[in-house]
Amino acid sequence: MDLAIPQREELLKTQEALLPYVHRTPVLESALLNELSGARLYFKCENFQRMGAFKMRGAMNAVLQFSEAEKEAGVVTHSSGNFGQAVALAAKNLGIKAFIVMPSSAPAVKKSAVRTYGGLITECEPTLAAREAEAARIVKATGATFLHPSNQIEVIMGNATAAMELLESQPELDFIFTPIGGGGLIAGTALAVHYFGNECKTIGGEPLAADDAWRSLKTGKIETNTNTNTIADGLRTNLGDVNFPIIKMLVPEIIRVTEDEIIESLRLIWERMKIVVEPSSAVPLAALIKEKGRFRNKKIGIILSGGNVDLAALPFSHSKQ
Amino acid sequence: MDLAIPQREELLKTQEALLPYVHRTPVLESALLNELSGARLYFKCENFQRMGAFKMRGAMNAVLQFSEAEKEAGVVTHSSGNFGQAVALAAKNLGIKAFIVMPSSAPAVKKSAVRTYGGLITECEPTLAAREAEAARIVKATGATFLHPSNQIEVIMGNATAAMELLESQPELDFIFTPIGGGGLIAGTALAVHYFGNECKTIGGEPLAADDAWRSLKTGKIETNTNTNTIADGLRTNLGDVNFPIIKMLVPEIIRVTEDEIIESLRLIWERMKIVVEPSSAVPLAALIKEKGRFRNKKIGIILSGGNVDLAALPFSHSKQ
Repeated sequence: MDLAIPQREELLKTQEALLPYVHRTPVLESALLNELSGARLYFKCENFQRMGAFKMRGAMNAVLQFSEAEKEAGVVTHSSGNFGQAVALAAKNLGIKAFIVMPSSAPAVKKSAVRTYGGLITECEPTLAAREAEAARIVKATGATFLHPSNQIEVIMGNATAAMELLESQPELDFIFTPIGGGGLIAGTALAVHYFGNECKTIGGEPLAADDAWRSLKTGKIETNTNTNTIADGLRTNLGDVNFPIIKMLVPEIIRVTEDEIIESLRLIWERMKIVVEPSSAVPLAALIKEKGRFRNKKIGIILSGGNVDLAALPFSHSKQ
Repeated sequence: MDLAIPQREELLKTQEALLPYVHRTPVLESALLNELSGARLYFKCENFQRMGAFKMRGAMNAVLQFSEAEKEAGVVTHSSGNFGQAVALAAKNLGIKAFIVMPSSAPAVKKSAVRTYGGLITECEPTLAAREAEAARIVKATGATFLHPSNQIEVIMGNATAAMELLESQPELDFIFTPIGGGGLIAGTALAVHYFGNECKTIGGEPLAADDAWRSLKTGKIETNTNTNTIADGLRTNLGDVNFPIIKMLVPEIIRVTEDEIIESLRLIWERMKIVVEPSSAVPLAALIKEKGRFRNKKIGIILSGGNVDLAALPFSHSKQ
């Protein structure tokens, strides 16, 4: 294997360094979902993580690597969602300034959350180009360090700690399912499974409506989406040159699911487990249920990525019941 | 004290008898809600209980007391909600027939849940008189035993076990807040606090729109509601002659809250704790927040009564954010 991936020891050090800053989230089971899937499921509840998503792990690990000079200058990212909150809270933990570039169209509740964590918000036009330009301008003006939400090895290593904890609780998992969006969570999970699993495999769940990662695994190069019309708003982004080689090497399969399948699994998690998760978190369960014949009686970990949802815009309606 | 309330030993035996049939539900904390309330809060999560509510405890304890002849004949209740499910599941655990009278207007999802647990549903007109008449007819025809959801001592003693578990985890609570509807949960909680608390007090939270219990405590006799237009649909019922004497003796205070206060606390629990609870469960937190000046720095247990909600009919809208 040519690729220089992080070593086992480095992941253990990462986990230890994060201890004071992240929750060890609970692992929940559901008799009903076991019955329904025919497998034995272990849900790693990153919706209960600080700021409400696994993103806290990667952001925190990234700022922990900063030199004194870098800490002095601060950190920058652009985000319409969870990563902005994660960077703001991670920076706050170390007394670092956090500049968060947010599209002007971002919901007020997300801007307010970033502000609660002390993030300094700059608004920009709601395009990726505008976001990148504004972040670059801030880097130039302040000397702050730019953090990417998924395509940065420190972030990936931080993300790995969720699956490490899950494998500590359940060492005999046969599979761990995660959502796949920008690729940062699944790359970290795959590293954890590689070093700490016992004949365990990592499987991705992806919306059919934004199946760039599925196509990338087929062609062997990073593919992009022409549109991303999925309710799983955390999974609309593309893979990157840091995470894709890890995914190509360590993720044998991605299973694609429809919007109806995502919404049905989201409803199952809310109704049966009584927990609030975001639509992206329902994608791996939907993937498992879709292919449940192949996973019968297996022990399966599922990473519930986060729980920051807009309660005023839920996809549940009477007609779907 | 003239009232013959259940003894400490009887409650301990009840708890032991229920062990195989109920979950020991987790106790969750929230740094943000601690900060917001100025107190230290411990949430007892009965939304994670079997069939999704504390009602499982009382129903199970009641059927456990049945003689062989009573088991043979079965159990009857009338319910539009959680208690029907609880009785059906409790009966299923012991291989007993459960006759559940439900108003024809009950949501399909609730009927389906009762059926899942093997309950035999009889539909009737959506009035209390029709429900009682139909239940009486079944008792007469089958010899089955009628269970009341809140005004029966075995049910109250079963309900007490939630607060007993909470006090085992947190023996130094100053107060336990519960919702008050039919009175079965708060009566059980108050018994647990009386025997197992350490200078702990039980406080009720009640919707202003159905404040019969608050008025009953004032007048010293059971008052009723002329209308019950509250979102907390579990709290529309009146107290009974079994639970009211316990409440009068052991509950020093009921705090009333508006519908907006209930919805705001419901939102806080969903958004900040990432758990699904029913509107009735938000009432005690709303009561605490309303009077938070008086509870500053106190250790407070809050019983989250259940999590069976209709996801298609939530009270959250953008205008309220």
